[in-house]
Amino acid sequence: MTVIALLQLDPTVGDIVGNVALVEEAAAKAAEAGADMAMTSELIISGYPPRDMLMDTSFVAACEAASMEVKSPIPLLIGAPLSAEKNRHKPFNGVVRVADSRIPKIVGRKQLLPTYDVFDEGRYFQADDGPGIDRSLPGASVGITICEDAWQHIGEVPSDYAADPIEQLATWQHQGEPLAVSVNLSSSPYHLSKEGIRAKLVRKAASTLGHPFLLCNQVGGNDDLLFDGRSIAGWPDGTIVQGPAWSTGILLIDIDRPNAASWIPLDANSFKLEIVAPNEQPTFPPKGHDLLSAVTMGLADYCHKSGIEKIVLGMSGGIDSAVCAAIACDAVGPENVLGLAMPSRHSSNHSIEDAKVTAEVLGMELQILPINDIHSSVDETLDDELESGHPVAKENLQSRIRGTLVMGAANARGAMAIATGNKSELAMGYCTLYGDMNGGYAPLGDLYKTEVYEVAKAINSRSTGNPPITESTMTKAPSAELAPNQKDEDNLPAYTVLDPILEDWIERGIRNPSPLTGEILARLHANEHKRWQLCPAPRVSNRAFGQGWRQPLASRR
Amino acid sequence: MTVIALLQLDPTVGDIVGNVALVEEAAAKAAEAGADMAMTSELIISGYPPRDMLMDTSFVAACEAASMEVKSPIPLLIGAPLSAEKNRHKPFNGVVRVADSRIPKIVGRKQLLPTYDVFDEGRYFQADDGPGIDRSLPGASVGITICEDAWQHIGEVPSDYAADPIEQLATWQHQGEPLAVSVNLSSSPYHLSKEGIRAKLVRKAASTLGHPFLLCNQVGGNDDLLFDGRSIAGWPDGTIVQGPAWSTGILLIDIDRPNAASWIPLDANSFKLEIVAPNEQPTFPPKGHDLLSAVTMGLADYCHKSGIEKIVLGMSGGIDSAVCAAIACDAVGPENVLGLAMPSRHSSNHSIEDAKVTAEVLGMELQILPINDIHSSVDETLDDELESGHPVAKENLQSRIRGTLVMGAANARGAMAIATGNKSELAMGYCTLYGDMNGGYAPLGDLYKTEVYEVAKAINSRSTGNPPITESTMTKAPSAELAPNQKDEDNLPAYTVLDPILEDWIERGIRNPSPLTGEILARLHANEHKRWQLCPAPRVSNRAFGQGWRQPLASRR
Repeated sequence: MTVIALLQLDPTVGDIVGNVALVEEAAAKAAEAGADMAMTSELIISGYPPRDMLMDTSFVAACEAASMEVKSPIPLLIGAPLSAEKNRHKPFNGVVRVADSRIPKIVGRKQLLPTYDVFDEGRYFQADDGPGIDRSLPGASVGITICEDAWQHIGEVPSDYAADPIEQLATWQHQGEPLAVSVNLSSSPYHLSKEGIRAKLVRKAASTLGHPFLLCNQVGGNDDLLFDGRSIAGWPDGTIVQGPAWSTGILLIDIDRPNAASWIPLDANSFKLEIVAPNEQPTFPPKGHDLLSAVTMGLADYCHKSGIEKIVLGMSGGIDSAVCAAIACDAVGPENVLGLAMPSRHSSNHSIEDAKVTAEVLGMELQILPINDIHSSVDETLDDELESGHPVAKENLQSRIRGTLVMGAANARGAMAIATGNKSELAMGYCTLYGDMNGGYAPLGDLYKTEVYEVAKAINSRSTGNPPITESTMTKAPSAELAPNQKDEDNLPAYTVLDPILEDWIERGIRNPSPLTGEILARLHANEHKRWQLCPAPRVSNRAFGQGWRQPLASRR
Repeated sequence: MTVIALLQLDPTVGDIVGNVALVEEAAAKAAEAGADMAMTSELIISGYPPRDMLMDTSFVAACEAASMEVKSPIPLLIGAPLSAEKNRHKPFNGVVRVADSRIPKIVGRKQLLPTYDVFDEGRYFQADDGPGIDRSLPGASVGITICEDAWQHIGEVPSDYAADPIEQLATWQHQGEPLAVSVNLSSSPYHLSKEGIRAKLVRKAASTLGHPFLLCNQVGGNDDLLFDGRSIAGWPDGTIVQGPAWSTGILLIDIDRPNAASWIPLDANSFKLEIVAPNEQPTFPPKGHDLLSAVTMGLADYCHKSGIEKIVLGMSGGIDSAVCAAIACDAVGPENVLGLAMPSRHSSNHSIEDAKVTAEVLGMELQILPINDIHSSVDETLDDELESGHPVAKENLQSRIRGTLVMGAANARGAMAIATGNKSELAMGYCTLYGDMNGGYAPLGDLYKTEVYEVAKAINSRSTGNPPITESTMTKAPSAELAPNQKDEDNLPAYTVLDPILEDWIERGIRNPSPLTGEILARLHANEHKRWQLCPAPRVSNRAFGQGWRQPLASRR
């Protein structure tokens, strides 16, 4: 009987001291619970992704030294950046084994360095040329891989790697190296279509290797990247144990008895592990619920890790701001959230009423600050320009006045403003730069409008009392209320039409536009400028906006 | 006698049709002028850097096809992305040779892929394993390298490459391949401390190879990246010909007679080439003048390539906005620039007068829009929050009101707002998010305050009439004028003290702060949030803000 503890933790990027403390506390608990060995996720000491901090050799040296000094009563595999070899430039993404009675030792270094999509590891790391091994457990050597190392084996990588580390481990076995189990330290980001792929991965690896394959994943949000946890173990017969999502804890795996697996929670969440029979698939919550957990953890971690305790947001009575208010109340507590309803001459009374109900049900503060006086005063000052200029200038003014008030209240309270926009409107430029785009974080920035409705339903369905998002907010036609009787559908296709087109273009890279999408794409192209200035938004899709997502310019001739 | 034409051009990223036209026009002129062969800079067909467009296989295929179809009366070496090999994912960064009477041919593919700093080529390209060669010229084969390929030879790369393509070319020669000349297609970005390094590079390569080495560089701005041109040729004896900076044209090099080199300008600039004797160094203009050329080309290209014809900016009477106004007038013409002076209750009369003189000398429009009424109206609306809140909220209000007016005028006129802030204040967070940081481009965003003064002097010194930047603007103590009698030095060290500290930290990565820098660094850390939302700023230093530049968070324990 060998029990291995998968420490599913939520590290803060750059906080070496704090991350070490998380690991030590969890390793001690795992030992108490009877584990023979424990493992962390990838780069737990630096947190993932450490990005350009890795170019600071003193940071890497500090991470390596800290990992060697971690206290653990049982053998513990720790993911950490490791200093470059002599006369070389780039560090390694490695694994250090510590234990009470043994000298700390480097037991693995990553071979496959993903350098696509959100990953830039080729920029930061030197690749090693073989998998790792640890022989701490008597008679039960452990094969060691790090994240991408295991993905080549199921063909789920868009890169041309020269090696397949899982095959290499299998070769070692054939050559007589007795491996009892292999592990994978991961920081595998969340996105919607990833469901079930990790199950495929651990099943295939376990089947090839003929022994259990254990994957420990990071959990939590670091800026725009979200990690869902869901650490997972697979056996050669196809049995799977999947740990909970969106929560920290210890997944105890007896490598000989899948059914003996258990979960020790380290936070207040009540998610459970799942044991899945060989021919079945692990279950996932409905999309709206999973997205809600994802973006709530994203905002909560962004605040917590940045020392932000309070949130201010504009509340229009529309669906986006209502959903953001609910998420903010969950993330930092309703007593720390201020909503501002800022009616203009174009606002409906209904909108204020909806915002009031939402705030009241959530238990947060709402202030009503009419902007008519400011609006008139700005109109007068800019009169000459506005009269002769493009009408969008007038519409944007209202949004920018609101943005100024939101920021004013946020600065006064030492709070962070959040931007309430969604991915559909951001893609189309149907939003105002320095207006409703203001904020340090955009919880819905990677959710299409149709997905925002699914999240809204999840919020209402989990509510025990009155639903925070009113029936009227759920059903009224989306409107920016910046001109009399304005509706989004006056300027955009219906979101049920628009969103699939945007998804094809942005997520799937489909490049054969119909006449309708041609018009939409022209607007997508024209909004490069706005996307450049987006604040971080938690990433839930295959392709978010952000680094690198750029469209060709039209020909200038 | 063999004459090779270096086509120093300014491509637009993504504009395949326009870039092909630039190349064809220049190649025809080069042939007319007697060139036997011509060459472009790196990736001229896509423009550099094409970034994630390279992940679109149809874009890469279109670039490759377009490069094969370029019309040229003489053999022409063209830099272009080339499609991936069968069953492989990543494209190549290659060279296509076309000529009137020959079948187009791939003659080189880049070996060393820089993946650090502003470069991410390991993300996008597959590396080849040898340099290229072209045998179009009778009896005078041409060795071909692409940008980074030549830099390993002088040790100026922070990566661990396995090969040195210059040595490989030398080996080919020893093995009997008769090379008459070697070339390098470059897109080598500008930064201040790069002066003279390219001279070292072509001298060393020519000396190793025993024949001339010709480097053709891209010129112009693409978003935040600037390319200074300065295409250059070196001979084994150390003679150098350096082409002009910041201008498009054709550098004609007779490989047997350095003194016969000539420059055919393709724009109105009057810069000249320079022939440098073996023991001398090429000259460079004074720092302020070179920076002025750099950021002016950056803004002009950003506007031109994005279809922006007009610019709006706030003018406070301070040095930053005065310098930005002068740059904007140069970039799009004074008739297309609108300045807004927006005095508040804290503004000095002097400030308005200085702004007026600057606008008048530059010949641009200035509107004076007092913000007192709007200010009072916002104050009243937010009264409760402001009275009890952090005093910075009140100061920021003025900046955000101004930002709203600048954006209102810009939207009304279909113009782009520019942000006037400098790197010192952006680093320290001494600026207002959604206020003076508003704008689509920040011409001074990578210049320290002390460098802004050098640029100001360059602007005045080149002026033939009255200096656009007044003596008072040059000499008064910097002030945000957001509180009575406020001076920057009340909140920050003097810029002559601050800037060297920031340079040490940001450019040189020096990590041993004194107590004074400790306080400064705490502020640097705290401003991550603002930097995330910066608009593009032309890069002139070793390390700008932007992708990847992140500081460790403080420990949360």
